[in-house]
Amino acid sequence: MKDVYQIAVVHGDGIGPEVCAAAVEVVKAALGPGCPLRFTEYPAGAEHFLKTGQSFPQPTFEACRAADAILHGAGGLPGVVYPDGTEAGLDFTLRLRFELDLYANIRPIRLFEGVTSPLAGVKAGDIDYVILRENSEGLYAARGAGALLRGEVAVDTLVQTRAGIERIVRKAFELARQSSGAPRDGVRRVTCCDKANVLRSYAFFRSVFDEVAKDYPDIATEHALIDAMAMHLVLKPGHFNVIVSENMFGDILSDLAAATVGGMGMAPSAEVGDANGFFQAAHGSAPDIAGKGIANPYGTILSAAAMLDWLGRGHGDERLPRAAEQIRRVTEACLANGLLSADLKGKSSTAEITGNVCDRLAA
Amino acid sequence: MKDVYQIAVVHGDGIGPEVCAAAVEVVKAALGPGCPLRFTEYPAGAEHFLKTGQSFPQPTFEACRAADAILHGAGGLPGVVYPDGTEAGLDFTLRLRFELDLYANIRPIRLFEGVTSPLAGVKAGDIDYVILRENSEGLYAARGAGALLRGEVAVDTLVQTRAGIERIVRKAFELARQSSGAPRDGVRRVTCCDKANVLRSYAFFRSVFDEVAKDYPDIATEHALIDAMAMHLVLKPGHFNVIVSENMFGDILSDLAAATVGGMGMAPSAEVGDANGFFQAAHGSAPDIAGKGIANPYGTILSAAAMLDWLGRGHGDERLPRAAEQIRRVTEACLANGLLSADLKGKSSTAEITGNVCDRLAA
Ligand SMILES: CC(C)[C@H](C(=O)O)[C@@H](O)C(=O)O
Ligand SMILES: CC(C)[C@H](C(=O)O)[C@@H](O)C(=O)O
Repeated sequence: MKDVYQIAVVHGDGIGPEVCAAAVEVVKAALGPGCPLRFTEYPAGAEHFLKTGQSFPQPTFEACRAADAILHGAGGLPGVVYPDGTEAGLDFTLRLRFELDLYANIRPIRLFEGVTSPLAGVKAGDIDYVILRENSEGLYAARGAGALLRGEVAVDTLVQTRAGIERIVRKAFELARQSSGAPRDGVRRVTCCDKANVLRSYAFFRSVFDEVAKDYPDIATEHALIDAMAMHLVLKPGHFNVIVSENMFGDILSDLAAATVGGMGMAPSAEVGDANGFFQAAHGSAPDIAGKGIANPYGTILSAAAMLDWLGRGHGDERLPRAAEQIRRVTEACLANGLLSADLKGKSSTAEITGNVCDRLAA
Repeated sequence: MKDVYQIAVVHGDGIGPEVCAAAVEVVKAALGPGCPLRFTEYPAGAEHFLKTGQSFPQPTFEACRAADAILHGAGGLPGVVYPDGTEAGLDFTLRLRFELDLYANIRPIRLFEGVTSPLAGVKAGDIDYVILRENSEGLYAARGAGALLRGEVAVDTLVQTRAGIERIVRKAFELARQSSGAPRDGVRRVTCCDKANVLRSYAFFRSVFDEVAKDYPDIATEHALIDAMAMHLVLKPGHFNVIVSENMFGDILSDLAAATVGGMGMAPSAEVGDANGFFQAAHGSAPDIAGKGIANPYGTILSAAAMLDWLGRGHGDERLPRAAEQIRRVTEACLANGLLSADLKGKSSTAEITGNVCDRLAA
């Protein structure tokens, strides 16, 4: 337990500043006048790159590393690219993941009361699982390292290590044990998602999964190929508890899963390592709606709640998970009461949603 | 135009023999007594591997290469694996793709009357697009070539070439031009799906796409990142005409897309190069329902229709596309009349569906 927790805040691009400010407001309201969190803003992202030629200044990196937690709005703008064609504004997110070894990307997928799923006949509570995305290796290891030869042949390398797979798989089983959600079909289950039938590195992922699974005999296990998994998330989303996969596959599955519970606006995310924690919604910077005050802040608010949980666990500070629980309960109530942003086919502005959440927290 | 077309038929594993036999019967019924196709069976697959130690005998390969077209049921059985953990029974499909340079994997996604989509409010005709999957390079180039070092580090290499990208992108634009389906939102459109924001080889894919697009000013273009695309296929499937992507991404998208139109049983596929054509449904061998006579044959029947189109175009033989069109019309009628297999929540057996399709073709 600390008197003060330093939170490095990066607003980023597009709707980033709007949703990030909303989440900070909500956290302050939840913790009240004695709020032990100190929020300090640092620059990074595509806008900053356009202004200064740097997308992720070294002082921002140092502050993030030293902070107790990092909160981010969203980064990147289409067209703001490096000579190799990749996006400059993504440095913040992608370098933090690798340089702070934030190996576990935890993405809860849950259909809230009040939110309509695009899947027929699915109602609140039917979808409630976690995608655990390996966040420090896999195909993303190639970022910045891909080769283009004579303008003819481009190569990216997918790397998976035993140590990297083992720690993410252990995390998956631990999440399955902790999971407060209802077990599915009566069992707690970890699903290993890979492409073991075709590619050696994924077959390796699966074999390490099978080894580690022996240490968790209380948890059911299963394998699913990535292509079949994409289908399952549409056809039987109620089947899953915890899904663990390599980085690139986790990226794809988490957007797909978000689509089934209301879209990217409803997708919180926690990216944690052994020392640092980084919290941002899974959505992008949505420049088309930036500055209009209509962005959906729920994803970032729920990510901030995950930050409070993580900080509280790490520091034995019960005030923080208590506040997180309140934020989640109030969020749930607001959604159930129809406080929906445009992406959820509602009419509420970012400010209206944020204000309502804060008011209920104060009450 | 030929007097006789030699078709190499490989039944494969699981439900492969059942659906393959159904498709052969249907083709024969469509072309009547003078049917110019000669079907010859050759062995390959996981069962054959278990019996003989070989999953893809050289004579089968030679026959496939020499044939006018190749028809396949389905291959592979879980657990029948090589020492590196990948599946032995997939040799047939995967080696054919690479060794016959079948670079274009064409996967039409269409919601038929009578089939219920899991997406709310979506009806027949609303979903009608083609996924064009690059089938000869990308992450699949690593198959059989991945490295595992000291049991600690596994590596697979994603390779994309200018020539490989260019030819698949041209094919996409040509498909968009030919597309008999309704244009979407009033335009014909090719969507380039990649992960250009993060990885160099995908940024290269996108840049070659943009170059080639200049030759097709009559077709609209757009870019979508793979994660966003997975979401779009659920949230706005009616938006798309032709989607083109790298091999691994195409694999994932095509199962996901199939889920939205009734599942893998409704997913035909054509894999073609400049010289050879290979036709099989996109589904696997489904060993759990093999031999029960309940497999859905529609995917393979529609793949066989695609084979007739391709043969007819290649040989200037109008009888064949005419038969293909009849097969499609009859298939449509059978589905609309509720002739549905168990996967479509119906009660019709494989034999009942096949018999009905044949009877209507004869009538
Ligand atoms: C913004 C982008 C780099 C990122 C990713 O590809 O990982 C995003 O899609 C995500 O899922 O966090
Ligand atoms: C069977 C398997 C090798 C194959 C693939 O991964 O390409 C299948 O999933 C497909 O989509 O054709």
